[in-house]
Amino acid sequence: MKSPLQIGLFGFGTVGQGLYDVLRRTPGLQSEIKRICVKDHTKQRPIDASAFTYSASDIIEDPDVDVVVELIDDADAAYEIVRASMKYGKAVVTANKRMVSTRLPELLELQRQTGCPLLYEASTCGSIPIIRNLEEYYDNDLLSGITGIVNGTTNFILTHLTRRGADGGYESALREAAARGFAESDPTLDVEAYDAAFKTVILTAHAFGAIIDVNSVVRRGITAIAPFDVRVAASMGSVVKLLSRVVIRDGGVSAVAIPTFVPEGNALASISHEVNGVRLDAAFSEAQLMVGKGAGGGPTASAVLSDISALRYGYRYEYRKLKGSEVPTLNNHVDVVAYVRGARSIIEAIPWKQRRIDVRSTDGDYIIGTVELSSLRESTAFDDAETFVALVLED
Amino acid sequence: MKSPLQIGLFGFGTVGQGLYDVLRRTPGLQSEIKRICVKDHTKQRPIDASAFTYSASDIIEDPDVDVVVELIDDADAAYEIVRASMKYGKAVVTANKRMVSTRLPELLELQRQTGCPLLYEASTCGSIPIIRNLEEYYDNDLLSGITGIVNGTTNFILTHLTRRGADGGYESALREAAARGFAESDPTLDVEAYDAAFKTVILTAHAFGAIIDVNSVVRRGITAIAPFDVRVAASMGSVVKLLSRVVIRDGGVSAVAIPTFVPEGNALASISHEVNGVRLDAAFSEAQLMVGKGAGGGPTASAVLSDISALRYGYRYEYRKLKGSEVPTLNNHVDVVAYVRGARSIIEAIPWKQRRIDVRSTDGDYIIGTVELSSLRESTAFDDAETFVALVLED
Repeated sequence: MKSPLQIGLFGFGTVGQGLYDVLRRTPGLQSEIKRICVKDHTKQRPIDASAFTYSASDIIEDPDVDVVVELIDDADAAYEIVRASMKYGKAVVTANKRMVSTRLPELLELQRQTGCPLLYEASTCGSIPIIRNLEEYYDNDLLSGITGIVNGTTNFILTHLTRRGADGGYESALREAAARGFAESDPTLDVEAYDAAFKTVILTAHAFGAIIDVNSVVRRGITAIAPFDVRVAASMGSVVKLLSRVVIRDGGVSAVAIPTFVPEGNALASISHEVNGVRLDAAFSEAQLMVGKGAGGGPTASAVLSDISALRYGYRYEYRKLKGSEVPTLNNHVDVVAYVRGARSIIEAIPWKQRRIDVRSTDGDYIIGTVELSSLRESTAFDDAETFVALVLED
Repeated sequence: MKSPLQIGLFGFGTVGQGLYDVLRRTPGLQSEIKRICVKDHTKQRPIDASAFTYSASDIIEDPDVDVVVELIDDADAAYEIVRASMKYGKAVVTANKRMVSTRLPELLELQRQTGCPLLYEASTCGSIPIIRNLEEYYDNDLLSGITGIVNGTTNFILTHLTRRGADGGYESALREAAARGFAESDPTLDVEAYDAAFKTVILTAHAFGAIIDVNSVVRRGITAIAPFDVRVAASMGSVVKLLSRVVIRDGGVSAVAIPTFVPEGNALASISHEVNGVRLDAAFSEAQLMVGKGAGGGPTASAVLSDISALRYGYRYEYRKLKGSEVPTLNNHVDVVAYVRGARSIIEAIPWKQRRIDVRSTDGDYIIGTVELSSLRESTAFDDAETFVALVLED
């Protein structure tokens, strides 16, 4: 591509502004933002009005723009921007995990049809270059599992709950996260683990070459957690983390985004507050861990920047694993160890294969035992707002 | 390259045997070892004698061999194998950090002349894909420093010393490392930080595009450490780690492989035993951490395997940073904070710019203060076998 690279930017929130600043301050990157498309005509902005447009076509149809960087919230609108840009022959960089995870088949087809590269490192674990590493470094024949803390908001809340113990509980921890800027005004996507599920879909595709629907990720949020659950985990030498986890077993792949008791000896247990971390389990290399800031303007902008740099060198995702001969299919009919705390009738109704612990107490009843993941998901307990469901990590 | 890839292997130690096993058990890798060159005619080996040759040319001159994997100890012999193989048009994968770090200019020229790729991910931090990440992901305009625990032997010894405290001291910890298989019969390369210095050279090249001589790395080993030093570090809320550290300051790059007081809040402080970890400091992404097994048959073999896979996709190091317009030059004339414990006359003779702490005690005298790195290196203290020298990490 030519130098300097001309960028058309959609969205001018924290990430967009961060990107704008660094590109101006770092001439070595040889990239400049030619124009920025925003929605709100009335908003005061820190740079000159001439940099902005309110019409997408001013960017998409501008022959001088080499790369479109899409940083807006709305997944459907984002998809339209990406689609139109690629049809016009632009390379695209996006941070939109919802859009990428729910439109993956269309995005693959678009890349094939147009020949334009689409990069989205910033969509998953912010500054951690996990997609690039899965694409380029970890051969799926050797990789057996990927387990990550991929959502900073819930990790902040859970860290707060764990360290502060009983005082205040979930609601207080959520307020603290919001006060510190780690929770959106509507935190549903985060606390109900939709965000983690989106990222799980993206990780599954790049780790194992399997395209799975976001609804097939076994997803459960953290809203039902009580200080009691945190204490039970602690009594077992574990901490509660919301994990995104994709594991190969018997040629199939199971995918969850769910609260999990993580033993304190596991490196993921010590990843705290808004930090993200991903553990890769591979034959021979043993566990590998990558840790970094998973959200926020700077870390996300840094991932976007790396994608822009990569475009300059002709980089694109090859999706080799998708084309492999032995792509695993989704199989959630695998046994897991689960902790379920709630009303006696509800936790009893789970089709446990084996109960290890069954506790009745004034603080709450709970059962820890083995159950098939898909049966657990179909149980009443799994959708009940008062019941807390977690998996128990044993490796 | 064709399938299956035909590999000619030099060396059949732990790593070579691990590689042989995994390639046989994983047909999806589509690579097979055609022949193995070893030195010792008399040694009993676990596989059929027909797989072996004692003549390098049987591999190098075999037109069917696509890739030469070099896994021998001797750096000079390794270089001759690599050179001859590349001249014969072979792609080469090596794990030999001494060879790579001391022959980097020649190896660059060989790649240029022959057009053959040379990959050496296994040379630095074993299973951690640090070279590939530095090459592909971290633009040097944004990277400001790289700090790592890159030697498992010394990290095991230092962890043992820290956790066990005073009992036994360095010698006892070294014996424990040897007993657990984490120290060579001659541990000099590890404990005197030569190994870390080799890796520092490789990291410097791929992080910042600067080719530095291994002798210009400010290198100091851990043999002079006493339990007293570990206690002083602990009193400051730190642990002692042997760090490899390359930092950009004022357009220059300083490079050390030296014991360092690492604050307990720093993620590197909790990387224990034989595990390796690398922290990358970059604008916007904030600190990134990669953790994994840095040595041993499996982890090293996994890095070799990833290199072999990458060759299949036409991957090669582009060394873009070397060709950049603003390659930093070596500059060790930077101020550091150092801890030096030893005889009064020796520690007094260091040209301190500022002394923060000056302690006289029956256990030992020490000074903590600011000093220019190059002056520290030239001081008598730095080479004195009884004096313990460490840097104090402040970020």
